[in-house]
Amino acid sequence: MEKVKEGDTVYLKGKKAGFFVKVKAGEVFSTHLGNINLDSLIGKEYNSFIESHKGDSFIILKPTLYEIIMMGINRKTQIVYPKDSAYITLKLGLRSGLKVLESGIGSGAMSIVMANALYPDGRIYAYEREKDFLENAVKNIDLAGFKDVVIPHHKDLSEDIDEKDFDAAFIDVREPWYYISKVRELLKPGSMVGFLVPTTNQVSEVIKELKNCQFIDIEVEEILVRPYKPVPDRLRPEDRMVAHTGYLIFARKGF
Amino acid sequence: MEKVKEGDTVYLKGKKAGFFVKVKAGEVFSTHLGNINLDSLIGKEYNSFIESHKGDSFIILKPTLYEIIMMGINRKTQIVYPKDSAYITLKLGLRSGLKVLESGIGSGAMSIVMANALYPDGRIYAYEREKDFLENAVKNIDLAGFKDVVIPHHKDLSEDIDEKDFDAAFIDVREPWYYISKVRELLKPGSMVGFLVPTTNQVSEVIKELKNCQFIDIEVEEILVRPYKPVPDRLRPEDRMVAHTGYLIFARKGF
Amino acid sequence: MEKVKEGDTVYLKGKKAGFFVKVKAGEVFSTHLGNINLDSLIGKEYNSFIESHKGDSFIILKPTLYEIIMMGINRKTQIVYPKDSAYITLKLGLRSGLKVLESGIGSGAMSIVMANALYPDGRIYAYEREKDFLENAVKNIDLAGFKDVVIPHHKDLSEDIDEKDFDAAFIDVREPWYYISKVRELLKPGSMVGFLVPTTNQVSEVIKELKNCQFIDIEVEEILVRPYKPVPDRLRPEDRMVAHTGYLIFARKGF
Amino acid sequence: MEKVKEGDTVYLKGKKAGFFVKVKAGEVFSTHLGNINLDSLIGKEYNSFIESHKGDSFIILKPTLYEIIMMGINRKTQIVYPKDSAYITLKLGLRSGLKVLESGIGSGAMSIVMANALYPDGRIYAYEREKDFLENAVKNIDLAGFKDVVIPHHKDLSEDIDEKDFDAAFIDVREPWYYISKVRELLKPGSMVGFLVPTTNQVSEVIKELKNCQFIDIEVEEILVRPYKPVPDRLRPEDRMVAHTGYLIFARKGF
Repeated sequence: MEKVKEGDTVYLKGKKAGFFVKVKAGEVFSTHLGNINLDSLIGKEYNSFIESHKGDSFIILKPTLYEIIMMGINRKTQIVYPKDSAYITLKLGLRSGLKVLESGIGSGAMSIVMANALYPDGRIYAYEREKDFLENAVKNIDLAGFKDVVIPHHKDLSEDIDEKDFDAAFIDVREPWYYISKVRELLKPGSMVGFLVPTTNQVSEVIKELKNCQFIDIEVEEILVRPYKPVPDRLRPEDRMVAHTGYLIFARKGF
Repeated sequence: MEKVKEGDTVYLKGKKAGFFVKVKAGEVFSTHLGNINLDSLIGKEYNSFIESHKGDSFIILKPTLYEIIMMGINRKTQIVYPKDSAYITLKLGLRSGLKVLESGIGSGAMSIVMANALYPDGRIYAYEREKDFLENAVKNIDLAGFKDVVIPHHKDLSEDIDEKDFDAAFIDVREPWYYISKVRELLKPGSMVGFLVPTTNQVSEVIKELKNCQFIDIEVEEILVRPYKPVPDRLRPEDRMVAHTGYLIFARKGF
Repeated sequence: MEKVKEGDTVYLKGKKAGFFVKVKAGEVFSTHLGNINLDSLIGKEYNSFIESHKGDSFIILKPTLYEIIMMGINRKTQIVYPKDSAYITLKLGLRSGLKVLESGIGSGAMSIVMANALYPDGRIYAYEREKDFLENAVKNIDLAGFKDVVIPHHKDLSEDIDEKDFDAAFIDVREPWYYISKVRELLKPGSMVGFLVPTTNQVSEVIKELKNCQFIDIEVEEILVRPYKPVPDRLRPEDRMVAHTGYLIFARKGF
Repeated sequence: MEKVKEGDTVYLKGKKAGFFVKVKAGEVFSTHLGNINLDSLIGKEYNSFIESHKGDSFIILKPTLYEIIMMGINRKTQIVYPKDSAYITLKLGLRSGLKVLESGIGSGAMSIVMANALYPDGRIYAYEREKDFLENAVKNIDLAGFKDVVIPHHKDLSEDIDEKDFDAAFIDVREPWYYISKVRELLKPGSMVGFLVPTTNQVSEVIKELKNCQFIDIEVEEILVRPYKPVPDRLRPEDRMVAHTGYLIFARKGF
């Protein structure tokens, strides 16, 4: 069984709340459910229990990717949500060994999900023109354990790109249509590209340019997650739901 | 660049259609777009082109996971669709190194998506009582390249299970509530379980038993994919869409 | 052109806000956009303009049914929302001359929409066991101008009902299954009944009893309204939407 | 009780099927469930029963508005479906006494629903440039019993319109933006206009022109109906649903 060591980020899951905690010797983590001496965490097994000074019990968990994305990473931008990132990753067919082009990197939430599918032998070449975003994303990707999978570049896609023959690409920038002919050059024939854009106007622009550039198999989709109240005898959807994150666009480099 | 060899399954992508083809020396593959001599495929590079005897051009592709799931596998059961399987896999937090319990295996479509996230050091222990389904699923998983990740058992979950301390579980059987206390025993504290059931009555039963067994963080969700016609000047959703595959239920083994 | 008279309820629509106001001589209506002397409203034409003492302009409107339902009525219960009430009314085929059974009356929002379709020669016989609700609903229905269309009864449907041979029925009570055989007796052969229930468990119970009572053409539906941000160059759905009000059930009295 | 007379259109509802039949003396109506002598219908009460020569029983129904719209009218165009027409009618606040502008008339399905709300003292002034559509729509509206409510004009909205001071307008033409300034002239201050358009590009154009013309309270919505399989012990949505009919746009003539 793996044990907690200094520097780990753990997820302390209590009955009523959960906390992301970076384990530092000599420090105390304070919550409304009581204080936890971080020294006492070091050396304990993951999935074992610890109590706060008030007697509240917590399970010591190694955070899952989902928890890291939703609670662990530092957000400097709107993130790509799991409902979208998981689907895009599968739709692009990502798996170990493939070489993926990504631009921009945002806060790295999408990179983390793609990196998990590409691990250990695939690579993401990530291009981001905002230095601030890039540095933050790299830290987040490191937290998730995928530093070796993602190769960050402080560059806009319009600049010279050294790599080529990509197996797939994911583009999440404000005006993706300016980069589509460049993406075409960088992809292997038959490879897939994915986009996420929030507005219908952007969808139209992207499709237009994909057709100009002879991409085929163009698909536009949106994904809705509808949550329910988990009450067995009065089962019903929640009153409100997220109605929109973005439109997903997929296409294949044709002939 | 990787080359096609005998025994490979390739995806021949033409302008108007795509075909899954198992490459066998001496054979000819016939389509309405003309015949392709399979001998001529052997030794060609992936992502290069080939022509049928009628002059139609095809890209020779290594099928992606998405294509394998949607077109390559042999279906003996309803499969878990990518919109659901990708999300479940991320929600369960699957990554290399984790040990996952699965029952039943169906046609293996869910196993393939989970295996991709678990690759190379995670494992799925898959339990299936229908021998027929199990054998078919194992072939499908092999086609996707994940034979080493999935350990099949011809067993119902109600029988003795040798493994324990699972990091996550996915249960897709008709009456999952009968197995929830067993799943609880098999999971590490704090670990996640996911279910897929088609009816609201099943959702109620599963939630009831999850509460009986002190599972926490119960969530019920459904995922809808809405497709659009990819026409830039007349952008609009398709006339019809899939309205339902199943309800997803997630919970965490509590205290 | 119709003129405002004392006792009217008017809708004062400004550029940034709208107000429902009951016109009383000698009173002043105060808003953050300034005060309006109600005496000055009396005798003005509807659809003409008035200014507050701060110079903000308002259109003097006769409230539409939609505005009365959403802003004018006093709510003592959850109301049936326009997306549901409009559809139910059309699905039940309501028009002048028909005789409709309703129970319970809630705050009268549903009665108002049905009354509009039944006007002038149709009637709603409304049964409500909570006196408080009934009295409030009658006031709301009066505000909408349909006092003559709705005949209120302070009664539960399980009690003796003098009327019979109804052309349609709408049932919105917590446990509608207890009243279905009674509803059957009260309807003409071939007539439609509608229900609104919030949970899937209630849907199952209602269907079960409808089948017991030989109702035919059973349909279950839910209606979702998805709003968009009205920005021409960045058109996109709102971030969040109402995910659920209730399930609609329709059936026809069979043979 | 009302009786069937020659010339009526009746809805014969059997256990397994329903039929719209125009009652003509001396004729026989043939179905796979047997023949019905139409003479024998004349003089029978509505909501009573009749048998085919094979012994299948039918309820003799006066068709509801819903049935007339979905099964009775002759369609020369795509119709506005009940989910949309019912909601639009309520959102526009239609009731007896109001004067409504409509263009185009299509097959009259929308006119019928609006006419029902406007009955008996409201009027629709319907403008349609296709003579063919107009004549068909008038027949359909007559079948529904609303000939007196709808005043048809064989005219495009760009031509001279004699009427003015409308209380509401509904516009369902291919390029509605060309008519918005005209609609503004024709509406009373504070009145509502509604549009139905199938594409996002049209939505953007309509909003743009509404803003140009100082319309306020602009709203864009779409309505989705999700049907369920009515099986009490295995309740679940249908596999497929209608994903799109059109976008609804509403606005109010401002200052």
